[in-house]
Order: sequence, then structure tokens, then C-alpha cells
Amino acid sequence: MQGLAASFRIVLVVFLLSMAGAAAANGRKRVVSSSSDEPCTKMTLYLHDILYNGVNNSQNATAAPATRPTALGTTYFSNNTFFGMLVVFNDMVTEGKELPAGNEKPAALAQGFYFYDKKETYAAWFSFSLVFNSAAHKGTLNVMGADPMDEDTRDFTVVGGTGDFFMARGIVTIRTDLVQGSFYFRLQMDIKLYECYV
Amino acid sequence: MQGLAASFRIVLVVFLLSMAGAAAANGRKRVVSSSSDEPCTKMTLYLHDILYNGVNNSQNATAAPATRPTALGTTYFSNNTFFGMLVVFNDMVTEGKELPAGNEKPAALAQGFYFYDKKETYAAWFSFSLVFNSAAHKGTLNVMGADPMDEDTRDFTVVGGTGDFFMARGIVTIRTDLVQGSFYFRLQMDIKLYECYV
Amino acid sequence: MQGLAASFRIVLVVFLLSMAGAAAANGRKRVVSSSSDEPCTKMTLYLHDILYNGVNNSQNATAAPATRPTALGTTYFSNNTFFGMLVVFNDMVTEGKELPAGNEKPAALAQGFYFYDKKETYAAWFSFSLVFNSAAHKGTLNVMGADPMDEDTRDFTVVGGTGDFFMARGIVTIRTDLVQGSFYFRLQMDIKLYECYV
Repeated sequence: MQGLAASFRIVLVVFLLSMAGAAAANGRKRVVSSSSDEPCTKMTLYLHDILYNGVNNSQNATAAPATRPTALGTTYFSNNTFFGMLVVFNDMVTEGKELPAGNEKPAALAQGFYFYDKKETYAAWFSFSLVFNSAAHKGTLNVMGADPMDEDTRDFTVVGGTGDFFMARGIVTIRTDLVQGSFYFRLQMDIKLYECYV
Repeated sequence: MQGLAASFRIVLVVFLLSMAGAAAANGRKRVVSSSSDEPCTKMTLYLHDILYNGVNNSQNATAAPATRPTALGTTYFSNNTFFGMLVVFNDMVTEGKELPAGNEKPAALAQGFYFYDKKETYAAWFSFSLVFNSAAHKGTLNVMGADPMDEDTRDFTVVGGTGDFFMARGIVTIRTDLVQGSFYFRLQMDIKLYECYV
Repeated sequence: MQGLAASFRIVLVVFLLSMAGAAAANGRKRVVSSSSDEPCTKMTLYLHDILYNGVNNSQNATAAPATRPTALGTTYFSNNTFFGMLVVFNDMVTEGKELPAGNEKPAALAQGFYFYDKKETYAAWFSFSLVFNSAAHKGTLNVMGADPMDEDTRDFTVVGGTGDFFMARGIVTIRTDLVQGSFYFRLQMDIKLYECYV
């Protein structure tokens, strides 16, 4: 009896371990994190948005307004909150804070759009794909969420992924790391995935 | 033997209950609903879209067209189906049907966009974040989906959430509750989450 | 002892089978695939994008540019990469490669938008709903992702579904099947769902 009970416990422990979020997947295993403190994948990356100024930076610019601000953007502030301005971007994403030097490749590209959506102050809404095509990662993470810029950090949702990030889900916590004038900002992105295939 | 078998059954039942969608998560537990009739979270809210009329309602308006309707919108109807008109919004969301009175705060804000996408009749497509910042809820729900307005109810997808709605997934069933002229509509939103951390 | 051990194994196997992704759901069961080679649902469909030419094809056109290309689209190529042009579409989706003949209904409609987002070459970003309303399927699949057209195949994310596709998640692998001039393209979509309620 003792022997059986003991082996039952062992089986159960192995079973628990194997079930606690992991199912065999073509060599890769599905992992669902059981704690918001313990993502199955974690990365910090920086997004560089260089906005076209309409004059002379088309060589460096990676983003451009596709629509003009509406009149709602000047309701409260004469300096404009850009309500309704939609920007299409294909921004470089790096591991460090600096833009890639010379022929250096960025860690990823962020391809998508944002628009400003508040009368009273600056706020935006983003949807984009992080496109990885490096030795480290190949695949995409698809992201969306509100960006109330007044807050120190904001959370986007990782709604899915492809390639190395097959079926991923998680959170991207962003923080405005630097703003230079009207045509450059850098976002710190803490990417935490809670559903992964590893 | 009977005793062992019985305790085995008890362990198994406890195990089943604990595995049937719930894993410990930093005090919060992951819950996956096993029935489309039994969401783990349910709320009914109303979205108020007050469209800028381009003339005199900028103080009240919470939405504005960022693009003009295309010529496809007048192919079938001279009164225009607005094909291609994209509206950016930051709409108030309330628990009751009325707009907040005086200094009352809305239950949430809906920040995002919709556009009209049908030649023959009115249909739209939405993507937005429900942004909660109240005593009851802090966090966001990210939503997207098609809105074929001819149908009595339409289903959007809740693709993710943050804060109190960490990693949520579910369905928002919408119903047009009121349309007043060309510049106001109210949507009833029945929000049903089937993946929650509670 | 042998008898108990044997029945324990049987229970465990049944348990494993029932837990390995399937939970009773209102007659329908939640299925999470354990292998990227074995989606729980698979379909191949074709999306037909007929772009409004601004002149004489409004009867057939199912898509129209809501914004103009920005000047970034002519930075590298005088023939324009259309950076920032956003197209709203309501495209027919078919099981075979041909457009529906006469009064034949398409298998689904794809309602959403894409925009071009690269200076150096053609690349786009899509978000849309596949809207099914046929004898075979009623419901929607919501999709988003980057479309780097230079690659033979690209992967979008299925971020959710409604109706017959309640709470679905998966991948859509797309391939450009045909391009005719500037105003028609056909995409092959291999839809693979890894989370289903069946």
C-alpha cells in the first residue's frame, strides 16, 4: 500500500508539472505562466519614432502623418493636441537606447500606426507588429493598446505572435524614454509574454 | 484498498477543480470558462459617440472624422454610406444610459477608431480600448471587430486586457441603443470575459 | 493491487485525454492544439481586393483609399511605395480562386483595412474581420499582422473569433496569388486555428 501510494504521488507530481501549462508541441511546449510576476519570456527593447517633418528629413524619417489633426485638437489648447492625426510608422527597434550605427541592423522593426485621440491633452492609441528577422529571433509580435501619455507607464496587449513567437500573448509596458522636439521620440518597451511555446 | 481508492478519488476531484481553468497567479487565479453561457466576468456598459459636426459642437464632441468618405460611399445611395470615412473617438462609457451629469465621471473611456466599409448599406469596423480608471476598475480591455449595423446584435472580440483585466479574453455583444441625427449614437455593450485572472 | 493500479492508469489516461485541451462548453468543447502541425481547424480561402480606381470601377470595386500616399513613399522610388496610404476594404472571400459568378455568394467577406508602411519597397499592415454568413459557417475571425510582401509567405495572427469561431485563436499564412495591374490582387489565406471550441 505504501508503495502504491508513494508511486501515485510521484505520478501525480510529474503529472502536475507536465500539466501546469505545458503540452508537447512539435518539439516546442506550450507554457502558460501562472503568475503575473513570472512571464515565460521577457525582453526590453526601444522603439525610435522619427516623424517626417514634411520638409527635409525623408531620408531618416520612419513615420509620416497619413491624416491631418482635426479641429477638435485645438478646442482646448491653441498648441494642438493633434486629435485625429494618424501616423503610419516603420520604426527601428533596438536593444540599447541608441539608433543603430552605420550598417548595424536594428533588433526588430515596429510596423503599424498610432493616432492622437484626446482633446484636453496628449494621448494616443497604437497598433503594430514587432517584426524580428535576426539571428536571435524570427517572427512577429502583434500589439495594440491605449497610450495615455500623462501616465508614467502604460500597458499594451500582445494579442498574438508568429514564427518564434507562435501564439504568444502578453503585455508590453511602455515608458516615454526621450522626446526631442516634434519629430523624434523613443519608447522603452518591457515585453512580458505569459503564453509562449518554448 | 477502499480507503486508498476513496482518497484517490478525493484528490482527483480536488485536482480536477483546481486544474479546470485555475492556476495560482500572484494571489490572482487564471480562470478559463468552460461554457459560453458562463463568462468569468460580465458587465453591461453604454458607449456614447458624439461626433464633431465641423461647426459648433467641439466642446461636447468626443469623436471626429479623420478621413472623408470615398466616392464608393455614393455608388448605391445618393445619401452616402460613408465608405472609407475613418472616425477617431474618445467616447464616454457609462453604466446607465444617460451621459454623466455635471462633474460625474464616466465608468470608462472608449479610445479608438471606426470606419465605414460598405457600399450598399451602413457597416463599420471598430478597434478600441476601454480604459477604466475608477474605484471599481483600473485597467483596459482591448476590443476589435466588424459591425454590420443591419443586424440586431453584433459581436466584437476582446483580444486582451491590462491591469484589473490582465490577460483577459472574451466577447462584446453590441446593440445600437439610440441614434440621434448624424452626430450621436449610443451602443449597448454586453461584455463577457471567458478568460480572466480573478 | 494490480487491479487498482490498472484502473488508476485508465482513469489517468481518460483524465489526460479530457484535460489535454478539452473542457465541456455548452455542448461545445474547448480544444487547444498541442502541435503547430495540428491545428484544430484548417481552411484555405482566397481574398479578392478590387481597388477603386477613382474613375470608372465603382460598381465592382470593394476597396478604396481613405488616405493619400505620403511623400515618404517617393523617397527611394519614383514609382512610389505608397507609404501612408490607408485602404478600407470589404473584399469577397472565396473557396476557389475565381470570383463568385452571377448571384453566387462568396464564402465570406473580409472587412477591414491595410496601409503601406515602407519607404524602400512594398510592405503593408492589415487588420480585418472575416465575416462568415453561410450555411457552412456563421461568425467572424478577427485578424491582424504585418505583410512584408517581399517574402513568399507571411503570417498574420487570428486574435479572436465569434459565433462558430467563438474565442478562436490561430495563424493565417498568406501568399500573394495574383496581381493584376494596380487595382486587383488575390491573396491565398491558409487559416489554421490552434484554439477552438468544437
